[in-house]
Amino acid sequence: MVTARAPRRAAAPTRLRPVVEGIRPLVDGGRFAAKAAVGDVVAVEADAFVDGHDLLHCEVRYQRDGDRQWGSVAMRPLGNDRWRAGFPVDTVGPHRFVVRADVDRWATWRRDLAARVGAGQDVTSEIGEGAALLAAAAGRAKGAERTVLAAAASCLAEAPRGLETGLPDGLPTELAAGDTVGDLVFGDPLADLARRFGPADTAVTSPPCPVMVEPRLARFGSWYELFPRSTSPDANRPGTLADVVDRLPYVARLGADVLYLPPIHPIGTTSRKGRNGATAAGPGDAGSPWAIGSADGGHTAVDPDLGTVDDVDRLVAAAAVHGITVALDLAFQCSPDHPWVTEHPQWFRHRPDGSIRFAENPPKQYQDIYPLDFDTADWVALWDALFGVVRFWIDHGVTVFRVDNPHTKPFGFWEWLIGSVKADRPDVVFLSEAFTRPRVMERLAKVGFSQSYTYFTWRRTKWELEEYLTELTRTPVADYLRPSFWPNTPDILTDQLQTGGTPTFVARLVLAATMTASYGIYGPAFELQQHTPREPGSEEYADSEKYAVRHWDLDAPDSLADLVARINAVRRAHPALQYDHTLRFHHVDNDQLVVYSKSHLVDDREWWPDGDPDVVLVVVNLDPAYPQSGWVDLDLAALGVEPGRPFVVHDLLTNAHYRWEGSRNFVSLDPAVVPAHVLAVVVPPAQ
Amino acid sequence: MVTARAPRRAAAPTRLRPVVEGIRPLVDGGRFAAKAAVGDVVAVEADAFVDGHDLLHCEVRYQRDGDRQWGSVAMRPLGNDRWRAGFPVDTVGPHRFVVRADVDRWATWRRDLAARVGAGQDVTSEIGEGAALLAAAAGRAKGAERTVLAAAASCLAEAPRGLETGLPDGLPTELAAGDTVGDLVFGDPLADLARRFGPADTAVTSPPCPVMVEPRLARFGSWYELFPRSTSPDANRPGTLADVVDRLPYVARLGADVLYLPPIHPIGTTSRKGRNGATAAGPGDAGSPWAIGSADGGHTAVDPDLGTVDDVDRLVAAAAVHGITVALDLAFQCSPDHPWVTEHPQWFRHRPDGSIRFAENPPKQYQDIYPLDFDTADWVALWDALFGVVRFWIDHGVTVFRVDNPHTKPFGFWEWLIGSVKADRPDVVFLSEAFTRPRVMERLAKVGFSQSYTYFTWRRTKWELEEYLTELTRTPVADYLRPSFWPNTPDILTDQLQTGGTPTFVARLVLAATMTASYGIYGPAFELQQHTPREPGSEEYADSEKYAVRHWDLDAPDSLADLVARINAVRRAHPALQYDHTLRFHHVDNDQLVVYSKSHLVDDREWWPDGDPDVVLVVVNLDPAYPQSGWVDLDLAALGVEPGRPFVVHDLLTNAHYRWEGSRNFVSLDPAVVPAHVLAVVVPPAQ
Repeated sequence: MVTARAPRRAAAPTRLRPVVEGIRPLVDGGRFAAKAAVGDVVAVEADAFVDGHDLLHCEVRYQRDGDRQWGSVAMRPLGNDRWRAGFPVDTVGPHRFVVRADVDRWATWRRDLAARVGAGQDVTSEIGEGAALLAAAAGRAKGAERTVLAAAASCLAEAPRGLETGLPDGLPTELAAGDTVGDLVFGDPLADLARRFGPADTAVTSPPCPVMVEPRLARFGSWYELFPRSTSPDANRPGTLADVVDRLPYVARLGADVLYLPPIHPIGTTSRKGRNGATAAGPGDAGSPWAIGSADGGHTAVDPDLGTVDDVDRLVAAAAVHGITVALDLAFQCSPDHPWVTEHPQWFRHRPDGSIRFAENPPKQYQDIYPLDFDTADWVALWDALFGVVRFWIDHGVTVFRVDNPHTKPFGFWEWLIGSVKADRPDVVFLSEAFTRPRVMERLAKVGFSQSYTYFTWRRTKWELEEYLTELTRTPVADYLRPSFWPNTPDILTDQLQTGGTPTFVARLVLAATMTASYGIYGPAFELQQHTPREPGSEEYADSEKYAVRHWDLDAPDSLADLVARINAVRRAHPALQYDHTLRFHHVDNDQLVVYSKSHLVDDREWWPDGDPDVVLVVVNLDPAYPQSGWVDLDLAALGVEPGRPFVVHDLLTNAHYRWEGSRNFVSLDPAVVPAHVLAVVVPPAQ
Repeated sequence: MVTARAPRRAAAPTRLRPVVEGIRPLVDGGRFAAKAAVGDVVAVEADAFVDGHDLLHCEVRYQRDGDRQWGSVAMRPLGNDRWRAGFPVDTVGPHRFVVRADVDRWATWRRDLAARVGAGQDVTSEIGEGAALLAAAAGRAKGAERTVLAAAASCLAEAPRGLETGLPDGLPTELAAGDTVGDLVFGDPLADLARRFGPADTAVTSPPCPVMVEPRLARFGSWYELFPRSTSPDANRPGTLADVVDRLPYVARLGADVLYLPPIHPIGTTSRKGRNGATAAGPGDAGSPWAIGSADGGHTAVDPDLGTVDDVDRLVAAAAVHGITVALDLAFQCSPDHPWVTEHPQWFRHRPDGSIRFAENPPKQYQDIYPLDFDTADWVALWDALFGVVRFWIDHGVTVFRVDNPHTKPFGFWEWLIGSVKADRPDVVFLSEAFTRPRVMERLAKVGFSQSYTYFTWRRTKWELEEYLTELTRTPVADYLRPSFWPNTPDILTDQLQTGGTPTFVARLVLAATMTASYGIYGPAFELQQHTPREPGSEEYADSEKYAVRHWDLDAPDSLADLVARINAVRRAHPALQYDHTLRFHHVDNDQLVVYSKSHLVDDREWWPDGDPDVVLVVVNLDPAYPQSGWVDLDLAALGVEPGRPFVVHDLLTNAHYRWEGSRNFVSLDPAVVPAHVLAVVVPPAQ
């Protein structure tokens, strides 16, 4: 019954025994970089295990791309073969890490020895094996370390009374912590040395896992959007970039880190939209800033009504004095009057009759916009020109870009564009404005966008918020997509804001500002509580600034500017609010209340030995009409509070203090007063 | 402010627009093969999307490795950019598939055209573009298809009244389904042709995704384990392989598909274990079959007390007559008397004094076992010898192996061994007996084991069962790990079986046999309801067959043999019970009741157009002492039952029938009668 032909064999066997898998952060197996920001400790986890009962030593090795040296940090077992470590990043640019696992033969030997000693077994043979392990390690070491290992090996080899043998004189001082051979072999210094000089060829190292480190602003920042043409103090003329400079003290008082301007370029006149988006503009209608390009220039020009490129330089410099970064809009589309339409007609799609196609999403038509054809045969020149636009503004000091509708351009274009920019300038931040399907938004984040707008505006119930935030902060999506929550934008005035009144404005502001470290508002529409839609059922603002110049009364008595300023000050003062990954929801027995916390230096204290923990607990009443109360069941561990230890919660909005104890506490919020608690959790020092 | 140096660019851009990701089944990015069995339809899912609003066409292409041709099946959108298709596999061996996505320009044009027509827009220009699309497709086609596409292009190009233009005479008949150009462009035949001859260079194809197709037995089978030496009909002598042949009719009556024998090799005498695992054997003690090897031979020899290799051949052949497959045990370890100990001492680990180390898990010691040293410098010879063992038994007709403690040997060894065996004999099945940590069990499945023992014996509450089965059947683990549930093994007599009486035996049998398509019992201990432990608190059987010959009274009045036979007959009759991926739990308002269903041809009907649906619903009372009842809230969709349609549930254990309607139904189970319903769900034909 024996087969005649020789059996075929599978590929060459892997003889390395440890396995490393399930690494996080690792995006699509390393196809894309995970994201981090300057000042972060990158938390790395992996499954690592080996056959049998041997003990592993696992570590993370890390470096900035191009560095010669690797840093190294030992991983800690979390149980169930999961390991964890963190490494710090303090410069922008591409980094990488690997996870390395090896059998720790000395530690395994020592553990087994202890078990044998505990069971009263004779360990003469084992001591001999230990001596052999040390002698082999000495053979791999050099200099002083070799001397130390050899001395330790001799101690074991010549131990007439086993572990109870006294240590000889003359043993290197770093080992002589104790009296007996037993003290020596169970001591940490020897364990560390023996491991470091274990066999060199048995370790398994993961492939490099890329991490893109971006500026801190990519992780944490309060954005404020305004239309420059609506900043005029004079109701008889539109605003200019110079007026925006004058508005900076107001923006600074609000606590904004980023001032984002919709497109500032010349606006086309052909097929210009009228007020409220009417198909035909009337005389004097300002048009949409997103219909870019006229005889005055295109994407590298400034609308003459707003000023000049020099005015941009002045604004960027003046904003910097206030600690504010100016963000520009990248809207890669053209009005019919853009110079490229005549200079590069091949960059646009044509109809059979030779005319250029305007933008459509059939049956919707956008006659004032010509989309660019990214698939044009002349794509190299087109893509280069768009790269040139970004570089132009970078060269004028702009380092933050809000990108309009990136999901209507090829992913490969964005990967190339952002990669090309970051190759030179890894400090540049790109915010993706893609209100589209989840996989598309995720892909844009993977190919390089630093931040992403989200579905937050349409997530309003407790159930929706909990589910969405859990997805954004607790799944692998968190490794590469940084959410930015906006209660409103020039395109989105939700029916909730239309009807909910001040309690809804406040609640949505608090949610956005405390749920995500990056968030923004479109003002002054937000703080002035603009809530009138273009028509019933629409999410468009009435008399939208997208199509018309507005003049705002910043001193209106119902302005929420003070609250915005307060919230942003709280965000700056509390590192807990500057990260997203520690977000945890807490149960409360009322579906109109949502309760969550964020912490800093609580979960991962070990990697930040010198910092002070910071914990913020937020309670929001989602019901704009009625007071709501309930019992909260706090996850005390997430708050860093030991069970049974009283603690103080300090309301950062009202300055009230409450003394709480245990996990069950009562909360009550009247929307007519204030619909939210933003509570600093303070554990008084033990007596 | 312009930078002096030319900016660096990122790597060459990807101009292919579609994205394919999130493919399932795909194990560790293709590092390992997903698993399927002959007769399966492999369900493939992927995320596929493109920028903008273009429509995609997605398909799965598949082949057996080495085939020239690829099969192809179109994928169906599930929503949220998820796509799905299934492809059939009918031969064992390695297969592969790819997911291919391309923009369907004709479908996109047609959708936009319909929207424009619906809005009353002029579509003259669009019809011209459609004609151009068809003309380009004609240019890429050949022969008759080219003629058809060119004719259609002409129709559009020369349509004076647009879509209402009548079709000319002489149009190829396959297109002439209708009267007008509108009928032509919205017809399916043209859509299919236009897509097939779209641009060839714009599609994205995933890397090949490997799938190992194994025999049906790898997916579905009822195992029965017995010790050959305990099959003697004569209480004065031990059993032999010839006695096992005589036992086959009993095993066949039980409905077993696999008869698994613990090791049948010569047993060592040095340090032989005594009854109940005593350190020293008494005279006449039989020893553990896992202490393999004596002067009579090693892993390719048969214990002379059991018979000869020829007896194995006879048993394999006789079992086949009953439709039973014999499975042998692969226990890669040696007794101190194994021939390899003297022939190849370098295959074992030695102490400093030169003696061979016996097996230990300090402080536990197994003096009758010498582990093999898979890391020996002579590893090539050792691994080849072990491969030779497997091939030896394969050459004697054995195609199923239960592998003892694979987790104490390197993963790389198993990957090489199983890969080498399957390179020639992809019909061989390996069951992993690794009761260890989850990641280790999963890795063994990844490297090639066909099936895996599980934690089932220790999962007893409803919460535990639901969580564990959800993990096994609904997460990516299901792509490569096939669970095999065993209520007992020679090593595991749970305290539940010790104390729960017949209701627990029945409930555990029903759970194992209906939750996983592969399951087994260790008999006759199981059907004879053996429940006495070696000592209180132990999971070892009293007078365990592992160390002693037993004589069983198969005719004992409390034997569950009839129930086992019934359950196994139900499993054979109901395809729903032969797969794991359709398992769904249903809510019931009593924590002592667990309710779940399995279905066949319900979820994936589209891929199996010719088969009959089959649905089984199981209700088990987990409480062995008291009747339990409750209201079930059925997921009717999982049962393939339309809401409002009455249906019949037929109890396959008691033959009772009940007429149910709607999702809410009452169940009650008295453990003193029978603790489980196994219900076929039958929807009577509509009147």
